[in-house]
Amino acid sequence: MASSPVSKLLRAPTDGFALSGVDAGGTPGVKSKKTARAETEAIAEPLFGLQERLYAERERSVLIVLQGMDTSGKDGAVKRAVGSLNPAGVRITAFKAPTDAEKRLGFLGRIRRELPGPGEIAVFNRSHYEDVGIVRVHGWASPAVIERRYADINRFEEEVAKSGTTIIKCFLHISFEEQRERLLARLDDPAKHWKFNPKDLDERALWSDYMAAYEIAIDRCNTDRAPWYVVPADHKWYRDWALTNLLRETMDRLDPQYPKPRLNLRALRKRLGETA
Amino acid sequence: MASSPVSKLLRAPTDGFALSGVDAGGTPGVKSKKTARAETEAIAEPLFGLQERLYAERERSVLIVLQGMDTSGKDGAVKRAVGSLNPAGVRITAFKAPTDAEKRLGFLGRIRRELPGPGEIAVFNRSHYEDVGIVRVHGWASPAVIERRYADINRFEEEVAKSGTTIIKCFLHISFEEQRERLLARLDDPAKHWKFNPKDLDERALWSDYMAAYEIAIDRCNTDRAPWYVVPADHKWYRDWALTNLLRETMDRLDPQYPKPRLNLRALRKRLGETA
Repeated sequence: MASSPVSKLLRAPTDGFALSGVDAGGTPGVKSKKTARAETEAIAEPLFGLQERLYAERERSVLIVLQGMDTSGKDGAVKRAVGSLNPAGVRITAFKAPTDAEKRLGFLGRIRRELPGPGEIAVFNRSHYEDVGIVRVHGWASPAVIERRYADINRFEEEVAKSGTTIIKCFLHISFEEQRERLLARLDDPAKHWKFNPKDLDERALWSDYMAAYEIAIDRCNTDRAPWYVVPADHKWYRDWALTNLLRETMDRLDPQYPKPRLNLRALRKRLGETA
Repeated sequence: MASSPVSKLLRAPTDGFALSGVDAGGTPGVKSKKTARAETEAIAEPLFGLQERLYAERERSVLIVLQGMDTSGKDGAVKRAVGSLNPAGVRITAFKAPTDAEKRLGFLGRIRRELPGPGEIAVFNRSHYEDVGIVRVHGWASPAVIERRYADINRFEEEVAKSGTTIIKCFLHISFEEQRERLLARLDDPAKHWKFNPKDLDERALWSDYMAAYEIAIDRCNTDRAPWYVVPADHKWYRDWALTNLLRETMDRLDPQYPKPRLNLRALRKRLGETA
């Protein structure tokens, strides 16, 4: 376990956030891969128990928002950090480019539909932050529209949080160099070619624009009710460790409890005996 | 691995099915708990690989329908047999009593909305079979309406199968005596009280009516495109072994393949090198 809560170590500062200040290869809170893997594994069981209580309680919920450049490990994070939970209480949504029907709902419309229900843990693989990310980078919306969206997002997330959903927003931060390695690795492995879209290289060429867009989004939409965490993600083992810890710390704070229905145990046992 | 495919061992016969002929405590295909647990665990890795290919292929899908009496282990089956898959490609729906809005969709309407998308594995925890199960037992629909539903279900499942979804319907078969033990165990454990609904005992009192309703449903809706498997479920380890094997055999038959996009590897590598 980290000596300082991971949610503290990785929380983006609210007084002027600069992405350049975060080392994508850093491993704050844990020193070695071996320790991190062991700690990640050790968290699986208590996390499973916490999730069961959240599910049983059926009141509150958790929403994990994952953002990051291609190959930053959003899919891997889902597999590793969420893979050990009970799938019955998990709801994962990967947001792609919006369809025409989705566009008509407004940029938050399709997001709203996938929010977690009571007792659920939802994971968004990409999210409404694409609408101030890729959209900003390519100028697909006017500056005035994008400007309004930050306020819309803050209002939306505030409302979601108030309704009982704890929001954890994670930016998986990889370096330009690490992305190159990962893209090259995909090219080297025929089983990974399906993940490779040559157009991803066009987006890669806009790297600094993306970093700027994320920096602004994280700076503008980083509230205590819907905080941003910047997760150094060059090391996959660190990413998994950080996400698992963030979820664990959140669940510990929520401290969900099994409902205690009033059951007449004696009468019920008697009735069960009689039906034998 | 079982010497005979599990899908053969557990398939409900199509020439007059009788539930009374199935021993809920049986373990066809595997002798000991130890062997079963080891085999179940050994399947996890190849299954994960098969799922990744199904997901990558994004053409076909799998739908697992779970039915069974209270405590028959539907939730446990989700946790164990599906828990080791990549959650990003899994979609689990627990169908409760239909809401008024759902009722207006017709009994198949809400089912349709939760069908798996291309590449997905969906699990229905209860399903449209409730509409010929509990509904039949309680007489909530007229005999004529229920009669029509069997044909509607067959048509619906045929259509789903034709669209590329392989359907695996499992009846988790527990004995009356085993249900008593499991209900008593819930009463003994305060952490399980939330799962206990005193009304479940009213349903238990209708046990033979339920068995009759399931027998008819399995008999009437047991096609090669949407077959029923009757899984002896008094032993949890057998239930997990059987479901994992059924899924594995299905995925083996589908034999999904990674897409092979035409990539100009040399040009892409060069471009990646240049952007360094």
